[in-house]
Amino acid sequence: MKIAVLGTGMVGQAVAGRLAEVGHDVLVGTRDPEATLARDEPDAMGNPPFGAWREAHPAVALATLADAAAQAELIVNATNGAGSVAALEAAGEDNLAGKVLLDIANPLDFSQGMPPSLLVCNTDSLGEQIQHRFPQARVVKALNTLNASLMVDPAQLAGAGHTVFVSGDDADAKTTVTGVLESFGWSDVIDLGDIATARGSEMYVALWVRLWGALGTPMFSIKVVR
Amino acid sequence: MKIAVLGTGMVGQAVAGRLAEVGHDVLVGTRDPEATLARDEPDAMGNPPFGAWREAHPAVALATLADAAAQAELIVNATNGAGSVAALEAAGEDNLAGKVLLDIANPLDFSQGMPPSLLVCNTDSLGEQIQHRFPQARVVKALNTLNASLMVDPAQLAGAGHTVFVSGDDADAKTTVTGVLESFGWSDVIDLGDIATARGSEMYVALWVRLWGALGTPMFSIKVVR
Repeated sequence: MKIAVLGTGMVGQAVAGRLAEVGHDVLVGTRDPEATLARDEPDAMGNPPFGAWREAHPAVALATLADAAAQAELIVNATNGAGSVAALEAAGEDNLAGKVLLDIANPLDFSQGMPPSLLVCNTDSLGEQIQHRFPQARVVKALNTLNASLMVDPAQLAGAGHTVFVSGDDADAKTTVTGVLESFGWSDVIDLGDIATARGSEMYVALWVRLWGALGTPMFSIKVVR
Repeated sequence: MKIAVLGTGMVGQAVAGRLAEVGHDVLVGTRDPEATLARDEPDAMGNPPFGAWREAHPAVALATLADAAAQAELIVNATNGAGSVAALEAAGEDNLAGKVLLDIANPLDFSQGMPPSLLVCNTDSLGEQIQHRFPQARVVKALNTLNASLMVDPAQLAGAGHTVFVSGDDADAKTTVTGVLESFGWSDVIDLGDIATARGSEMYVALWVRLWGALGTPMFSIKVVR
């Protein structure tokens, strides 16, 4: 499948690399490819610049947000949650129409320091805001409950014996995303329901950030025991 | 230990019954004991009236909120989250001072139908509001991430192989509550940190209510896999 991953940070790199590894034709989309490649400093979290990652992943193409989205059948939103709607607008509403849009972003607000709060929650969610802004896209919220490394390789913990969630209005789109998740190694995928159920997985992030603090590592996940 | 359980609903009944079972001297506190006992209709959820429960638990005393709190060393807030601060005011600030206050309530807002949203979240929590209103109480948030039956008998699922959380500013109070949890059968108790971390366990409830819908049963829990 031809897949565009929008975003060049840790999540974008992890997802793009893994999608290529499992056999997809992957493009990474960024606002300004030249500027992205010209960056030679680690980011604020100390991660190596995108150019270094790309040298290790020569099969992954780099394009503008709009070029990447236009060519893809499935689009992954791996941009910063605070800027996701603007990034998707730059990708172009027409380029999203009819396509599965896997939304991984969390609307994190770091303005008051750590741990972050959410820019939207409780009676709305980023997943819903994206679906409302791009009504022709088939938005599926998933993978936003984990750190980037576990998203794409759940078998690192407990033989993948933990749980991931999907939310979305389009059943076929959720089936497509579930197939991608299974190709990453996920076996316990719970369909929470329509896109409004993204409020649940996004608000869980408030517990996730505190577990990160309490456990001292982001390498954890939750298993829904039933 | 002499323990007051404030609230006569499902959570109050489950916790009071279990505390008596494991050997504590338990009082249930309610605004008007006579009115509570006079009720002979099931509640809105179809649960039997409190009088029927009490007949099966003759060792558990019933008292006003203030009388129950005054006599107890440990106080459990099992009241409706929307009315918890008012109920604790009726219990009396002096009767809470210096005591461990195990807060199980979630600030659920059913005004927009199901699933409920939260009356407070993201930059505040009910646990914090209670601690701020009653600064001499030693508030510990716990057990608010489960249904009443699992709170007090976690071994019903996966041999108790799932997780419960504590949040609070007072380390000794968290130790006391953890001991109570262990007496219920809990073995995986994660200390999230200070009372502000109650935002995490309370916001998780947004995921919990949607899992309840998706799974069709409230008899589930989460295990933190690490």
